[in-house]
Formats: sequence, C-alpha cells, structure tokens
Amino acid sequence: MTNSTDTLDRLAAVIESRKPANGGDPEKSYVARLLHKGPDAFLKKVAEETGEAVMAAKDLQYGAGEAKALVGEVADLWFHSMIALAHFGLSPADVVAELARREGLGGLEEKALRKAKAREQGE
Amino acid sequence: MTNSTDTLDRLAAVIESRKPANGGDPEKSYVARLLHKGPDAFLKKVAEETGEAVMAAKDLQYGAGEAKALVGEVADLWFHSMIALAHFGLSPADVVAELARREGLGGLEEKALRKAKAREQGE
Amino acid sequence: MTNSTDTLDRLAAVIESRKPANGGDPEKSYVARLLHKGPDAFLKKVAEETGEAVMAAKDLQYGAGEAKALVGEVADLWFHSMIALAHFGLSPADVVAELARREGLGGLEEKALRKAKAREQGE
Amino acid sequence: MTNSTDTLDRLAAVIESRKPANGGDPEKSYVARLLHKGPDAFLKKVAEETGEAVMAAKDLQYGAGEAKALVGEVADLWFHSMIALAHFGLSPADVVAELARREGLGGLEEKALRKAKAREQGE
Repeated sequence: MTNSTDTLDRLAAVIESRKPANGGDPEKSYVARLLHKGPDAFLKKVAEETGEAVMAAKDLQYGAGEAKALVGEVADLWFHSMIALAHFGLSPADVVAELARREGLGGLEEKALRKAKAREQGE
Repeated sequence: MTNSTDTLDRLAAVIESRKPANGGDPEKSYVARLLHKGPDAFLKKVAEETGEAVMAAKDLQYGAGEAKALVGEVADLWFHSMIALAHFGLSPADVVAELARREGLGGLEEKALRKAKAREQGE
Repeated sequence: MTNSTDTLDRLAAVIESRKPANGGDPEKSYVARLLHKGPDAFLKKVAEETGEAVMAAKDLQYGAGEAKALVGEVADLWFHSMIALAHFGLSPADVVAELARREGLGGLEEKALRKAKAREQGE
Repeated sequence: MTNSTDTLDRLAAVIESRKPANGGDPEKSYVARLLHKGPDAFLKKVAEETGEAVMAAKDLQYGAGEAKALVGEVADLWFHSMIALAHFGLSPADVVAELARREGLGGLEEKALRKAKAREQGE
C-alpha cells in the first residue's frame, strides 16, 4: 500500500529540483526539459493527456480497454499539471488545501448543485 | 497539517457515498447528479476544466490573473477526474500508487526523456 | 447546392456583425454575448466542444450514438473556433487558405509522415 | 484568393483516398497512417490541437505571438477533425450543411442565448 505521507509532496520536490534555477538539466531530465521549454510545452501535454483520459474512460464505458489504462492516463494528467503548478511557484499541496477547504464548506455541494441545475436548463 | 493523500482519500470516500448504488441523491448532491447522468457528464467537465486550467496558466505567464485561479482550476480538474475514477471503481489512491511506482523505477525519467527527444524530432 | 466555403464566409459575416464595435447586443445575440465576454468565454467553449466531439466519436466507434451527434459536435467546435478567429481579426477564409496552401505543397504529407514516425518512436 | 469551390471538399476527397480500403499506405501517407491506427490516434491529435489553438489565442490576447500561429492551429484542428469525420463516413460538407441549417433557423441565436443566460446563472 502506498504510504499516505506523501507521494505527491515527494514528487513535487523532485519536480522542484528539476527547475533550471535548481540545476535541472534538459539533456538529462524529462521534467527539466519541459520546464526549460516553458508553459506551452507542458500545457500541451496537459491537453493531450486529458484527451487520452477521456478516451480511456469511454473504452471502459463500453467494456473495452483496461482499468489500469485510465489510471495511467489520469496519472499522466496529474503529473503534467504538477509540472505546470511548479513552474508558477505552486504545488499539489496548494491544490489539496483548496480541495480540503471546499470540503470544509458544508454548503459547497449545495451551491454546486444549484449551479448545475441552472446550467442544465441551458444545455 | 493534513497530508495530501489523506485529503484525497477522504474526498474519494465522499464521492463513493454519492454513487446511486450507495443512496446518492441527484436532487441533493452535485456529485450524485454527475454520477447519475453518467460518463459524458463528468468527462465533459474534465475537458472543460482542462481548458480553464490552461487559460489560467497562460494568464499567469503574462503576469495577469492570480495564482489562486490556477490552483482552483487544477482543483476542479482533479476533483472531476476523481469522479470519473469512482464511476469506474477506481480511486485517487490508484493514481498515487501508479505515480509512486513510476518514481520507484529509477530509469523512468531517462525513458521519458528518450521518448521526448524522439518526439521533438517529429514536431 | 451551396458550397462549403460560401456558407463559412456567410457565417463569418454574421459573426462579424455581432462584434460589440459593430453594434452586436449581448442581450440579444449569443455570439455578441461571447464576443463581449472576451477570449476565455469562447475558448472555454472550444475546449468543451472538443471533449464532446471526442466522446461522440468514441460512441460511434462502439456502434452506439448517432452520426449526426458527431456532425453536431464538430459543427459546434468549428463555429466556436470561428468566433475566436473573428475576435482576433481572422476568418475561416484564412484557415481554408492555409489548408489550401498546405495541400499545394506536394511534399507536405511526406514531411508530416516523417515527423509522425519520429513521434511514434517517442510514444 | 482561395477559390470558393471548395478546398474543404477537395481535402475531404484526398483524405477519403487515404483510407486503408482505398489503398492508402500507412508507410507513405500521414493521413493513411492515422486512419490505419484508428480513432484514438486522430482523436488524440484533435485534443492536442485544441490545446495549441487555445494557447495561440491567449498569446494574441496579450499582444504576443502571431495571427498566423492561431490560423495554423485552427487549420490543424479542422484538418484532424476532418480525418475523424472521414473515418466515420462523414465529411466537412455534413458539418457545413448543419451550420447552414442552423443559420436558416431564424430562432437559433435566440435559443442559444436563452440557454447561455441560464448557464451563466450556474457559473
């Protein structure tokens, strides 16, 4: 079982160490290469991995494909969004804190639901 | 301080409780509503949130927008991808385990780098 | 029978007339409303419609869904990308001219193929 | 100037000729290669090109980048969506006919507007 303290934080530290300013070498590290190339390089990967995650989910919907394919695509998606966060001085801990904050707001789902019902009238 | 995986696991449990089979009520819960409507409903949100995350990142690239906007969009993206995982009997723990597995494979970044270099010749 | 480019040009003229500077009224016209709200409003729709087009295509792949659903989603995608073009002073004629230019370059597919083969080594 | 009769139809005919059933050779043609690999190959490109189009538009929004970059990305997006259409026995003429049909429906923008207003209450 994955240790609950914190694969995501550990990965974020690895990504941080790959920044050009921290000596990351684009010739030796994939992450350093994306960070060196700049936002369009990793944001393009985020868009691409979303497309692949959606397709893997549709395969599962039809009883084709494998569960681990969807897990792999979502892992790719989260990983590349963590590279984007790092580039802008942010981390998965910020995202998780935001998710915890929303969870703590008792009324959150009610608000999201009210919005969703309004949106559906517009679909 | 809460650690990241705990928050994700707790959110996954909330999502699980919103499944129709577990009594989630589409009239009372946003998550139950998406799960009740089926894959296209939450996958569409995943695609939409990716677009918003990419735009928030571009705003930051140009010194506009706010860091918390990007955090919020990535939170939306991860949250809706967790709903997709739940629908197919998967969880963020599976994604985190996959990320840990890759991290444990010493040669992973080297392989990704080799692939990236080959791809770049094709761009 | 109308030809394709005429229809696209005619639609582009309608979109042009909906610009705020041309008197488009956000309270009366959907296109004027998107143009008035600015790039994020219509770019978000482009991302969303892409997600829906991909899902409609996957449905067809599995013998579900209807061909007209895919046609409708691609129509939505092209339409919203035309709004983006208009906002930046561009038109579908520019896109069609670029496609024609590429077609005229005899070596284009060969180049794209060479690139694709390099990319595939990186996948 | 581009001839108004019909770059899109001509391109659709080229794509049609690249289908495996029509003798398209994956070793010689980029389009034949995508069609041979199947839906995920070209749908992934559609998702990727959308990401690139959104980023090119954001660059223009901030006075960076060039108009021709956005034109090129939208051309890529339309081209790959035409490959998807072809795979499922559809064509750009079907998309254009749908756009013309909507244009002919006088009440269309009003309906889209009413929906958009409802959606905005949900945002």
